[in-house]
Amino acid sequence: MPYVNIKITKEHVTPEKKAKLIRGVTQLLADVMGKNPQTTVVVIDEVDTDNWGIGGETVTVRRQLGK
Amino acid sequence: MPYVNIKITKEHVTPEKKAKLIRGVTQLLADVMGKNPQTTVVVIDEVDTDNWGIGGETVTVRRQLGK
Amino acid sequence: MPYVNIKITKEHVTPEKKAKLIRGVTQLLADVMGKNPQTTVVVIDEVDTDNWGIGGETVTVRRQLGK
Amino acid sequence: MPYVNIKITKEHVTPEKKAKLIRGVTQLLADVMGKNPQTTVVVIDEVDTDNWGIGGETVTVRRQLGK
Amino acid sequence: MPYVNIKITKEHVTPEKKAKLIRGVTQLLADVMGKNPQTTVVVIDEVDTDNWGIGGETVTVRRQLGK
Amino acid sequence: MPYVNIKITKEHVTPEKKAKLIRGVTQLLADVMGKNPQTTVVVIDEVDTDNWGIGGETVTVRRQLGK
Repeated sequence: MPYVNIKITKEHVTPEKKAKLIRGVTQLLADVMGKNPQTTVVVIDEVDTDNWGIGGETVTVRRQLGK
Repeated sequence: MPYVNIKITKEHVTPEKKAKLIRGVTQLLADVMGKNPQTTVVVIDEVDTDNWGIGGETVTVRRQLGK
Repeated sequence: MPYVNIKITKEHVTPEKKAKLIRGVTQLLADVMGKNPQTTVVVIDEVDTDNWGIGGETVTVRRQLGK
Repeated sequence: MPYVNIKITKEHVTPEKKAKLIRGVTQLLADVMGKNPQTTVVVIDEVDTDNWGIGGETVTVRRQLGK
Repeated sequence: MPYVNIKITKEHVTPEKKAKLIRGVTQLLADVMGKNPQTTVVVIDEVDTDNWGIGGETVTVRRQLGK
Repeated sequence: MPYVNIKITKEHVTPEKKAKLIRGVTQLLADVMGKNPQTTVVVIDEVDTDNWGIGGETVTVRRQLGK
């Protein structure tokens, strides 16, 4: 019954990687907490680099600066 | 003043259905909790089936399997 | 499979009202969107009035002012 | 280390305004709480006016009514 | 830089299990997406069984019914 | 009409600081985006240091290590 939300920037994301994240975090909750995988819900949000900030800057700007 | 977030997969969603969800949940909070509809905020997120997991699988895969 | 998050201030909330909110919103998603109630997840967050702001003020202050 | 999520309707939003929101809220958390800007994360969600409800109506409808 | 939110019911949760969830999901994002663990943020919400609904019922009621 | 959620660890938080965060972020949205303060909603979540992870560790552990 757990609910997991994963937010990542929209960079180098593929359906295969998303499927792996979903499988992996569902398995983790089964292993650590004994949660039933059948009712574990995972939602992945891919966020534009203009809309993600860290250190007071957008990721767009950080990528331009080579960070 | 309540805030409601509804996440659904991006399948068969129309502006009419979204308007009904917003009206319905706002009314529910007025009926059950006495909340003022004028300040009840509802945000609907439509999520790609690749980005929604349940049972360790993406909904995309589940739809292909007829689940 | 929908996921709904309801945030309300921690004022006059009872287990009965929370059960009604959960039942009502689950039914709404079945009626409007045809969603299976068995996999509809609802999470209610009760928020301290010190931690909820509207109009630039905390709800605690607004209650003191009779708003 | 704070995490801030800002949800606004997708109306008149520009990269410059988003950068200002990120800079401003990161600075606010440094000023008020002494939080290190380097690990403050801000995520902005731009929401379609069809998917945002207030007063039981979508913002799309409210804009048509001149509200 | 990813942000992960894990919501589970407040049942049989210990600091050790929470530390394992944090370690595990941070490692998963490094393995699958190449994300830097140093800036991966994980927030765990433990939710009262009265405040979590599935199948239109609270988890409190489901536990009483032996579900 | 914006909705802002601020998550911080439960350390050195006071009602005064929370009121300042609410006032500040509401003002920021008015200044940058022209949003009406009367309908700007801010919710602050204070998270136990056991429930917040960064760098694969809980904040509880990081504080013990002097980080």
